[in-house]
Amino acid sequence: MAVLKNDTFLRALRREPTDYTPVWLMRQAGRYLPEYKATRARAKSFMGLCTDPAFATEVTLQPLARFPLDAAILFSDILTVPDAMGLGLEFAEGEGPRFAHPLVDEAAIARLAAPDMAKLAYVFDAVASIKRALADKVPLIGFAGSPFTLACYMIEGSGSADFARVRQMLYARPDLLHRVLSVNADAVAVYLGEQIARGADALMIFDTWGGLLSAQAYSTFSLAYIERMITRLRAGTGKATPIIVFTKGGGQWLERIADCGCDAVGIDWTTDIGDAMARVGARVAIQGNLDPLALLATPTVVETEARAIIGAVGARPGHVFNLGHGILQTTPPENVAALVACVHAESRLQRRGVGHGIG
Amino acid sequence: MAVLKNDTFLRALRREPTDYTPVWLMRQAGRYLPEYKATRARAKSFMGLCTDPAFATEVTLQPLARFPLDAAILFSDILTVPDAMGLGLEFAEGEGPRFAHPLVDEAAIARLAAPDMAKLAYVFDAVASIKRALADKVPLIGFAGSPFTLACYMIEGSGSADFARVRQMLYARPDLLHRVLSVNADAVAVYLGEQIARGADALMIFDTWGGLLSAQAYSTFSLAYIERMITRLRAGTGKATPIIVFTKGGGQWLERIADCGCDAVGIDWTTDIGDAMARVGARVAIQGNLDPLALLATPTVVETEARAIIGAVGARPGHVFNLGHGILQTTPPENVAALVACVHAESRLQRRGVGHGIG
Repeated sequence: MAVLKNDTFLRALRREPTDYTPVWLMRQAGRYLPEYKATRARAKSFMGLCTDPAFATEVTLQPLARFPLDAAILFSDILTVPDAMGLGLEFAEGEGPRFAHPLVDEAAIARLAAPDMAKLAYVFDAVASIKRALADKVPLIGFAGSPFTLACYMIEGSGSADFARVRQMLYARPDLLHRVLSVNADAVAVYLGEQIARGADALMIFDTWGGLLSAQAYSTFSLAYIERMITRLRAGTGKATPIIVFTKGGGQWLERIADCGCDAVGIDWTTDIGDAMARVGARVAIQGNLDPLALLATPTVVETEARAIIGAVGARPGHVFNLGHGILQTTPPENVAALVACVHAESRLQRRGVGHGIG
Repeated sequence: MAVLKNDTFLRALRREPTDYTPVWLMRQAGRYLPEYKATRARAKSFMGLCTDPAFATEVTLQPLARFPLDAAILFSDILTVPDAMGLGLEFAEGEGPRFAHPLVDEAAIARLAAPDMAKLAYVFDAVASIKRALADKVPLIGFAGSPFTLACYMIEGSGSADFARVRQMLYARPDLLHRVLSVNADAVAVYLGEQIARGADALMIFDTWGGLLSAQAYSTFSLAYIERMITRLRAGTGKATPIIVFTKGGGQWLERIADCGCDAVGIDWTTDIGDAMARVGARVAIQGNLDPLALLATPTVVETEARAIIGAVGARPGHVFNLGHGILQTTPPENVAALVACVHAESRLQRRGVGHGIG
């Protein structure tokens, strides 16, 4: 593997000292950028972007051309995996994702099986294409949905405010949910292994809906399957590619998440990042956690909020700056520019003991 | 004040020993009961129930006729207060609440003022009517929305998945949000004081949306105003009526909430109740925290989940059993019967050292 020109992100994930705090943003390639909207118009649809490696490469690189971000992330969707299982992913214009064939009954769950990875070749080809285009400038992050979060969409059939169907199944028929989660964990392990093989330098697991569960159910139905997936992935690849696990709404369970085999824990904006680092100690790095709504204000507000996070982290190594959730489409790009510049400058100052956050 | 025949709930709020764990359920008077739907049909609308003390009394007492619950809660809505401020509350059939005149601009916020409490006489009359009808059988809980949660609806104009308008205002124009919160805190203090005067034995503050905030913003924009409201209420009434504060999604901040002047902290289903009691220690009681989705399964599942909570609390005093959020309208009433019976029986057994949860 070639040496990366900027490996600050990977060193932060390993909790090594860095000259400054690396930063990337969830959904950094997205609708807040006019150039993204232009490419999407040419691609006709969101899945048109995902399934064409040339388009996926183009949009992945767009935010890096504007801002000195420290990592790129594969442009794709977490629901490619259940789509390849035959559930029939559809994106109606202006609406969220929907499955034509959700897991509506016991028979559908009994039939569920790991997908033929050849159906996901477009994802792996996109990873390889992006990796080439990056020319080792910054690391490339691959990703997947957590087994539980995928199950939420597979059982509900679409997005939902509360995913009541899957949460009801958890109590009424836990055996059925366990079967779906087992299939998902094994499929995601193979899927991520192939992303590593094609060039991903780090991986992120999006557990977007694990935070809807009770403390006990989270351990049993979400975290246990993330752990199983990581174990199989490590055994399958023999590689120590760093893994970030992000459970939105999981701030109460950080100690447990830190023990699942991951290298870093993502936190949303509701968690105090200083507390989070104190709680997980030296076990893992922490990624986060600016409120995406703060990015809708002025550059001055953005800088104040970013400095508060840098200050709360203090001198501790192992921080990757990010938002606490995906960037909003109404975000002014100039605020993103201010954020990235501020994170870099403020964290450099802080390492010299002169940051605003130290006092 | 007459002596209550069953004051187990109030003694648990004071962390005194009780023979068993008291139980009531958020939205216990609601659409899962056929008799509620029948009364609502006669009242024509949800607000028809709230504004007529006879109807409000009838539906408040319905769940107590079915189940041996340890408290009644006033049938009303948190948005009566902003409605009395002139925002024009409307409930379109099959939809959530909506304001005809939300706080859309700076001028509207500048005009906002505490309401004439005479406009809320129907609420206070309902409290007095319910109190008479209860005949001191069990305590009556009054309630209000937290200043921040009211502000969410007042600024957004309706319910929302993320209340982006108010969260954006928090960063862009905190001065405007502080003004709304000040008016709300003072109005709610007077409103709750009047509920005490007319017979409420305990009070609950519903901070349904405080959990959307960052850790710092929660303290500044939600908890600080709950604290101000409680201080004014105590000063205004000179009474120590117990107060429960429930921030949905506030599990990371329990220690701080416990210090706001309340007597009990409500927790949603994502928090481990044993951890919660260990964290707040002897300062306050804890109310919660069964996942409302568990109530959709079978009586056997309901009993298993209830026993797990009773077992996690153990011998500690100061637990009021409740759900982690409102009861769902698809809940089978027989599961509620099983829950209430199980909480009472299991907690009695546990106090004798023979509960399922011990050992």
